[in-house]
Amino acid sequence: MEQLDYFFNPKSIAVIGASREPKKIGHVIFRNLLEGDYKGKVYPVNPNTDNIFDQPCFPSVLKIPKPVDMAVICIPARFVPETLEECGRKGVKCAIIISSGFSEIGNSGLQKEAGDIARKHGIRVLGPNVIGLFDPYSGVDTIFNPRFKQQRPKPGCISFLSQSGATLSVIMDWMGMKGYRASKFVSYGNAMDVDEADLIEYLSHDRRTKVICIYFEGVVNGRKFYSVARKMSKRRPIIAMKGGLTESSRAAVSSHTGNLAGEAGVYSGMFRQAGIIQASDLEQVFDFARTLSTQPKPKGDRVQIITDGGGFGIIATDAVARNGFRLAKMGDRSLQGLRASVPEYVVLKNPIDLTGNATSEMYEKAISAAIRDPSVDMILLICLFQIPGLSPEVVDVIIDECSRKAKPVVVVSSGGSYTEVLKKTLEDNMVPCFSCPKRAAESLKALYDYSRNSKK
Amino acid sequence: MEQLDYFFNPKSIAVIGASREPKKIGHVIFRNLLEGDYKGKVYPVNPNTDNIFDQPCFPSVLKIPKPVDMAVICIPARFVPETLEECGRKGVKCAIIISSGFSEIGNSGLQKEAGDIARKHGIRVLGPNVIGLFDPYSGVDTIFNPRFKQQRPKPGCISFLSQSGATLSVIMDWMGMKGYRASKFVSYGNAMDVDEADLIEYLSHDRRTKVICIYFEGVVNGRKFYSVARKMSKRRPIIAMKGGLTESSRAAVSSHTGNLAGEAGVYSGMFRQAGIIQASDLEQVFDFARTLSTQPKPKGDRVQIITDGGGFGIIATDAVARNGFRLAKMGDRSLQGLRASVPEYVVLKNPIDLTGNATSEMYEKAISAAIRDPSVDMILLICLFQIPGLSPEVVDVIIDECSRKAKPVVVVSSGGSYTEVLKKTLEDNMVPCFSCPKRAAESLKALYDYSRNSKK
Repeated sequence: MEQLDYFFNPKSIAVIGASREPKKIGHVIFRNLLEGDYKGKVYPVNPNTDNIFDQPCFPSVLKIPKPVDMAVICIPARFVPETLEECGRKGVKCAIIISSGFSEIGNSGLQKEAGDIARKHGIRVLGPNVIGLFDPYSGVDTIFNPRFKQQRPKPGCISFLSQSGATLSVIMDWMGMKGYRASKFVSYGNAMDVDEADLIEYLSHDRRTKVICIYFEGVVNGRKFYSVARKMSKRRPIIAMKGGLTESSRAAVSSHTGNLAGEAGVYSGMFRQAGIIQASDLEQVFDFARTLSTQPKPKGDRVQIITDGGGFGIIATDAVARNGFRLAKMGDRSLQGLRASVPEYVVLKNPIDLTGNATSEMYEKAISAAIRDPSVDMILLICLFQIPGLSPEVVDVIIDECSRKAKPVVVVSSGGSYTEVLKKTLEDNMVPCFSCPKRAAESLKALYDYSRNSKK
Repeated sequence: MEQLDYFFNPKSIAVIGASREPKKIGHVIFRNLLEGDYKGKVYPVNPNTDNIFDQPCFPSVLKIPKPVDMAVICIPARFVPETLEECGRKGVKCAIIISSGFSEIGNSGLQKEAGDIARKHGIRVLGPNVIGLFDPYSGVDTIFNPRFKQQRPKPGCISFLSQSGATLSVIMDWMGMKGYRASKFVSYGNAMDVDEADLIEYLSHDRRTKVICIYFEGVVNGRKFYSVARKMSKRRPIIAMKGGLTESSRAAVSSHTGNLAGEAGVYSGMFRQAGIIQASDLEQVFDFARTLSTQPKPKGDRVQIITDGGGFGIIATDAVARNGFRLAKMGDRSLQGLRASVPEYVVLKNPIDLTGNATSEMYEKAISAAIRDPSVDMILLICLFQIPGLSPEVVDVIIDECSRKAKPVVVVSSGGSYTEVLKKTLEDNMVPCFSCPKRAAESLKALYDYSRNSKK
């Protein structure tokens, strides 16, 4: 386990296959390590070049005068075994094999050969056929997409594992734009050595990771995966999206990652038993992750809706009911207190409809009453920021009420640029925001289910 | 029908209840009409003010020296009947009653009184209890949210009707930010005169409207709605999202719009028979609208997937299968031609996987082969723009291949700011883009179902 730490916090990295040509993977990786936040030493290795970006280039990892913790290997597959041999002699602790052309195209012999060499030298390997990893804390970044094309998220507490490299990079890019923060991104591809189970175990002990997300199409070792996930899901929520759930996609899975996709029902059952939360699309993975990493556990299933738009209140009521929740009935004392402090046109039912005349003060009264009322377990708060009388301070009110973490609160808010700015502020302050009530209610459901499971 | 035209193209508008106070609805509406794109005359009416923004203010609509086509009424409910009487004497053609306080709070008598006066004078009325309308072509804009808080979409071909005013304004704001273009936005609230059926009929004959979207919680006159929708759905696709589908939300519906929400099953059956396409959330309404307003009708149910990311290809395969489509099997001739023109690592199955080494040229060959192949009915095109070798010109390639409209093409693309810019370019050129394969496949399904229905 401890050795996996070298992947995320290496003191020095050799980029084997670093290149002067801007479109080559070895160029982009070397450049990203130099220009990004990584603080350690980076050595380019390429026998055909003297220097790259004015850095002296080494013909082999063995010629690097200082110790090398990690090797990032991006050279044609057939050269990988001898390179690993050199890495072993150099004392390299871990290697990321970006190169493809192994078992995913039926070349299992070459993969086994490389695996044997790595094992002999005690090198832990990620890959082959991966995009590698990104750690926003240490700045380790082997993602070979240029930074202008693909954003990098800031440090946070969500980790994402992916069998597919492209999916990992799309998610990083999307999270970066949304302002969602992350702990670690890892693509593990053919999983010749380090597999999804190892990574789940590692991340479950990582103090910077509060929730583990994973996209995969099949598992290498089902029994190991199940037993690790079952234990670790008690330490950290594990949220999974499985690709290849239909008959039609099985063939595609086998030519993508070489795995057997398996029956949808078998997987769902296994997930449930292992305490894994299953998401139905990638966006939902992060809906769940943001809610589970920020919100306290609910005591029961009663949801109070507060809104400033009647239509959204009704859509939310439908969503709450469809997820099997009850609508909370606030106590008489709360309602009388609230009645005395908000205008008469405010509808004090569930949803509480503050109407298009809502103000920050009205939101404050309503949220605080719902948080204090013992008949309310969760709050689904709709805040449509467009209305004339609502000042941006409502964001401070929400953050303030949520910061005590007495009850789970999720926010629904939708609109254009003005709304996006306010939603980003909420997200930055640990309040998950959704564009539609359905996603908010489904996220509360994931939180509720996880809380119930972890009590068992 | 023709008189409804005055709502969207009035030569002059009186804002009755215009105000100097920035937070008053009558202030925002008057200001938006002055500062927006509306080219006609705008008259403020308010007996307590001499001028607003240096414009002379009239004590009554009767004192305006020139003809008035439309009155926007934002004064307390109890003054509405006498104001309508004055409008009638002035010869006003149509009125939007923004004011609330009528049947939605049980005040049916006042609503009936106002209705009788309007009818007597032949004034068509939108409302009461509405946010009114926005027409991006004529610039008529009675949406009382400030422009800095809520964006306005550019002229296009999607029209949106909403019983709920807040929902309408949120959608406008969101479409504005996304760059989705629109023809007309109308909230009809209590529908004292003009109702959803009238508006559907009007928009079905509007040459600028290619698709009609509607959000509602209940209909005023079910029989009229059904018979109009059934006829008009043959002229234009009608996409509906119904709020209040669960037992829990019925009570909320009645206090929001005073309607009976009705059984979910009853509505779904009625929609199907009337040829209305039902969406399950507001985002999906516009997924469908963008696809149906831009894409040709498919000849059959066979979908070809083209991708540069294996994972997304598999997720798309699942989504295609779940929507009841078949995976297309391209003919030997197409495949041989393609094999000769793309690198050997390209997987020529369904999905066609161009891999992370994809280039614009490879996309061009693959799309063009799929469009020409008679075994392909629709194309689901995944384009992850982050990969190093893919230049932005791929967008031109896609637009070019799609512009002939030989077959429906929808694009899946997800990521951060760089990707968003390219997606916006595609959307601007009539290529619908989705962030996840599920939404893309569901949109193709809506298009396919509508095509089949309209053949009947």
